[in-house]
Amino acid sequence: MRTVLILAFLLVSTPFFSQTEDEKQLKAIYDEALTNGKAYDWLNYLSNQIGGRLSGSVQAQQAVDYTKAQLDSLGLDKVWLQPVMVPKWVRGVPEFAYIENKPGLTTNVPICALGGSVATPSGGLKASVIEVKGIEDLEKLGRDKIAGKIVFYNRPMDPTMINTFSAYSGCVDQRYSGAAEAGKYGALGVIVRSMNLRLDDYPHTGSMGYGDTPVDKRIPAAAISTNGADLLSATIKLNPNAKFYFKQNCKQLEDVQSYNVIGEITGSEYPKEIMVVGGHLDSWDLGDGSHDDGAGCVQSMDVLRLLKETGYKPKRTLRVVLFMNEENGMRGGNKYAEVARNKGEDHIFALESDSGGFTPRGFSIDASEENLKQIQGWRDLFEPYLIHMFYEGGSGADIGPLKEEGMVLAGLRPDSQRYFDHHHAENDTFEHVNKRELELGAATMASLVYLIDKYGTVPVKKIKG
Amino acid sequence: MRTVLILAFLLVSTPFFSQTEDEKQLKAIYDEALTNGKAYDWLNYLSNQIGGRLSGSVQAQQAVDYTKAQLDSLGLDKVWLQPVMVPKWVRGVPEFAYIENKPGLTTNVPICALGGSVATPSGGLKASVIEVKGIEDLEKLGRDKIAGKIVFYNRPMDPTMINTFSAYSGCVDQRYSGAAEAGKYGALGVIVRSMNLRLDDYPHTGSMGYGDTPVDKRIPAAAISTNGADLLSATIKLNPNAKFYFKQNCKQLEDVQSYNVIGEITGSEYPKEIMVVGGHLDSWDLGDGSHDDGAGCVQSMDVLRLLKETGYKPKRTLRVVLFMNEENGMRGGNKYAEVARNKGEDHIFALESDSGGFTPRGFSIDASEENLKQIQGWRDLFEPYLIHMFYEGGSGADIGPLKEEGMVLAGLRPDSQRYFDHHHAENDTFEHVNKRELELGAATMASLVYLIDKYGTVPVKKIKG
Repeated sequence: MRTVLILAFLLVSTPFFSQTEDEKQLKAIYDEALTNGKAYDWLNYLSNQIGGRLSGSVQAQQAVDYTKAQLDSLGLDKVWLQPVMVPKWVRGVPEFAYIENKPGLTTNVPICALGGSVATPSGGLKASVIEVKGIEDLEKLGRDKIAGKIVFYNRPMDPTMINTFSAYSGCVDQRYSGAAEAGKYGALGVIVRSMNLRLDDYPHTGSMGYGDTPVDKRIPAAAISTNGADLLSATIKLNPNAKFYFKQNCKQLEDVQSYNVIGEITGSEYPKEIMVVGGHLDSWDLGDGSHDDGAGCVQSMDVLRLLKETGYKPKRTLRVVLFMNEENGMRGGNKYAEVARNKGEDHIFALESDSGGFTPRGFSIDASEENLKQIQGWRDLFEPYLIHMFYEGGSGADIGPLKEEGMVLAGLRPDSQRYFDHHHAENDTFEHVNKRELELGAATMASLVYLIDKYGTVPVKKIKG
Repeated sequence: MRTVLILAFLLVSTPFFSQTEDEKQLKAIYDEALTNGKAYDWLNYLSNQIGGRLSGSVQAQQAVDYTKAQLDSLGLDKVWLQPVMVPKWVRGVPEFAYIENKPGLTTNVPICALGGSVATPSGGLKASVIEVKGIEDLEKLGRDKIAGKIVFYNRPMDPTMINTFSAYSGCVDQRYSGAAEAGKYGALGVIVRSMNLRLDDYPHTGSMGYGDTPVDKRIPAAAISTNGADLLSATIKLNPNAKFYFKQNCKQLEDVQSYNVIGEITGSEYPKEIMVVGGHLDSWDLGDGSHDDGAGCVQSMDVLRLLKETGYKPKRTLRVVLFMNEENGMRGGNKYAEVARNKGEDHIFALESDSGGFTPRGFSIDASEENLKQIQGWRDLFEPYLIHMFYEGGSGADIGPLKEEGMVLAGLRPDSQRYFDHHHAENDTFEHVNKRELELGAATMASLVYLIDKYGTVPVKKIKG
C-alpha cells in the first residue's frame, strides 16, 4: 500500500519546495561520509582480513559473520541472516597453459578457469586452435573445422564505447555460452579472451553455463589474459600447426548453506513501505573482490549509518541487503525476492551498487516515466557533488528479481573507465580503491535514499484521487 | 582581428545548426583517441625513459628534445623551440629527518625539501617544535614562543570539499609562504604537512618563496608526509620536550637556458587568429611527473594529431605549447605571452591541461558571458562522452599571462579525487595513469578546439555590425 500519494505528486510539480532543508541534509551526508565514513575500514577488513569470497567458501561465511557483526554494532532496529542454498564451485590447484610452436618449444601464458567450468582431463588438454570472433562464427566454420580443436574466442571489448559496461555486454556471450556452443561442433575446449580493455597479463574469470549440455559432453573453458590472447592469435596466424595446452582442476560440488545479510531501520510512519540498498557479498576468488563488490556492500552498509549519524529517521523502512551468490548463481537475489513476495512485502525502491568503488557519476534508473522525472527533478541537489547522470537503464542484478510495476529500481553509476582493468581478476584488490571515491559513492546513495524516503515514489497504475 | 563575427553570433542563437556534422566530428575524434591515441606511448617515454623533469635538469632538456622530435614527426606546419632562461634548484642528496622523544629515542619520518628552500646547516637542524594551523597563528603566538624553534604547519586539506583543488588552495599558503613568515618571528626552520588528502608516507614537495627575506635570514622548509605529520603532532602533544631533526642539502644555482616546445598547424582561413593548447613539460623531481604534467603535454600534442588524423583542417592557427618551468618560476608561460605581445599576435583561445590525466569531467572557463554561453551551448555534443562541467573559473597557470579581454581561456577539468594522492610526490608515476582516461582527456580537448575553430569566439567589446 502506498501512502501520501497526493503529497508526492504535489512535490513533483514543486521541486524547489524545502530545497534548503534538502541541501542541508545532502551536505550533512557528504560531510559525514568524507570525514567519518566507515566504508573504507570495512572494505579493508573484507579485502585484507578475509579476501576473495566465492559462494560456498570459508571466506564467504567469514564475510557473512563479519558484516552481520558490523551491522549489529550500528544500532539498527533489526539485523538478520536470510538462509539461501548456494552452488559451490572450486578452482583447485592453479591452472597452467602454454602455446606450443613445436614439440619442446613452448611459451607459458596466464589463464584461469571460467567459473562453473569442468576440469580438463587430469593430464591436461592439448590441441590445435581455431580462432573465432564470436559464437556466430561457429556455424560458418562448421563441424569439420572445429571438431577435435580448441576454440579460441578472441573478440575484444570495443574501446570506442564510453560506457565500458556496454563494451562488456558486447563480448560476454563468448564467455558465458562459448563452451556450450563450441561443444556442439565437437570442440575439445574453449579459451576466451579476457573481458579487459587493457593489454596486460591478468586472466579474468567470470560465470559460464552449459545450458542443457549433458554432463559427459561438457568441455572445459578458460580465460586467457589479453596479452596472452594477442600472442596466441599472432602465433597461430604464423604457424597453423601450433597447439595450445591447458590444465585446470576445477570442480562443481554440492550446494551448501549460505546467507543474505540484512539490516533494517524500521520506518517511523510507513513501516510497510520498504526501501532496499545493497550490493553482493560474494566475489570471485582470484583477487579480494574489493571493487566487485566489496565496495557496493560497504557503501550500502554506510548508507544506513550516514542517515543515522546525520539525524535522519526514515519514514519508510530502510533495509541494507548484502546478497550472496551474485557471481555464479544469483541465488541470494532470487531468494530475497521470493521471501518478500511470500510475505506480501511492499518494496517501493531498491538501489544497488555493483559497478565498482570509483567516483560516482549518477544513477541508472528503471522506473516509470513519472518516477524517472521525479528523480531527475532532484538534479540540482546533486550538482554540488558532481553527480550528473540520471538516465533510464538497468539497475542491478540482485535487485532485479524484486521488480514490480510502480517500483523504482536504480543502480549507482560510478566512473567506468578502470572497472574492467580489475573485474574478476587477481588485481581486483583493496589498493585500487580510493577512499574518497568510495565514500562519495556511499553519500550519493544515501542522498537518493533520503529523497525517496522523504518524497515517496509515484506508483503509476495505482494513483488515488 | 576577429572575423566571421556575425556568423558566430548566428550560431550562438542556433546551436543545432550543423549538429550532425559536429556529432560526427566529435565521434571521429573520440574513436581515434581510444583506438589509436599516441598520448599514452608518449607519456610512457617521458615518464619511464626520461623521468622527473625539474627545470634546468638534464631530464628537462631530454624532454625538450624528445617532444620536439615527436612533433617534428607529426607533419605539422612549424615546430620550434622558444628560448627561456629558467631557475635551477637542485635537491642534492636525499633529506633525512627524525622525531626525538629523548636523546637516543628517535623515529625517522619521511620529509622532502620544498622547491626553492635553502639547505639546513650541514650537520642538520634540531630544535623544539611548535605546531600551528596556519600563518595567522604566528602573530597570536608571538616571537617568544616561536624564536629558536621549528614551526610545524599542520592545517590539513579540507576533506569535505568535492573539488580537491579548492581544498589545496585552502592550505597551500602554508607551503608557499610559511618559511618567509615564520622566519620573521625567529623560527629556525619550517615543516609543512604534505598537501595530501590521504594518510600515507609520501612527502609532497612544491614551490615556496622567501619574498623579500634577505638571503642570510632564509630558513629551510620541508614537507612531511601526512602520517609523519600526525605522528609529530601526537608526539609533541604528549611530550613537549620532543625535538625534530632534519637535514636537507638543496641549493639554488644560476639560471640556465631552456625552452618552450611549440608546434603549429597554420590556419587555412584566418592564420592570424591563434589558438593554443598546452601543458607544462617540467615537473618536480621526486616522481616521474606523469600526472603533473606529462599527461597535459601528451594530451595537448595529441590534440593536433587527432584533428589531422580525422581530416579536420583548422581555419585558425592551432599551436601546441609545452611550457617550461611552471612548477618553480612560471618562466615559460611568461615568456610565451611576452613574445606573443611583442609580435602583436592575436590569441583568441587557450586551453591548458594541468590537473592530471584522470577521467575528464569538463572545462573551467575564463571568458566573457557570451563566450561562456556559446561553449555551454555545445553541452549536448559532449553529453555522449559524459562531459558535463562547463563552469566559469580559472584556466591554467601557463596560459594565464596570455589573458586579454575577449579571449577565451579554459582548463580541462578531470576528476580530481585522486590527484592529490600523487601531486608533487614520489608516487606521481606512470602506472597511476589509466590509458583510456588519458585518451578521453585528449579527445575532450580536441573537441573543444574543433568547435572553437569552427565557430570562432565572440570578442565582446569589438562586435561589428
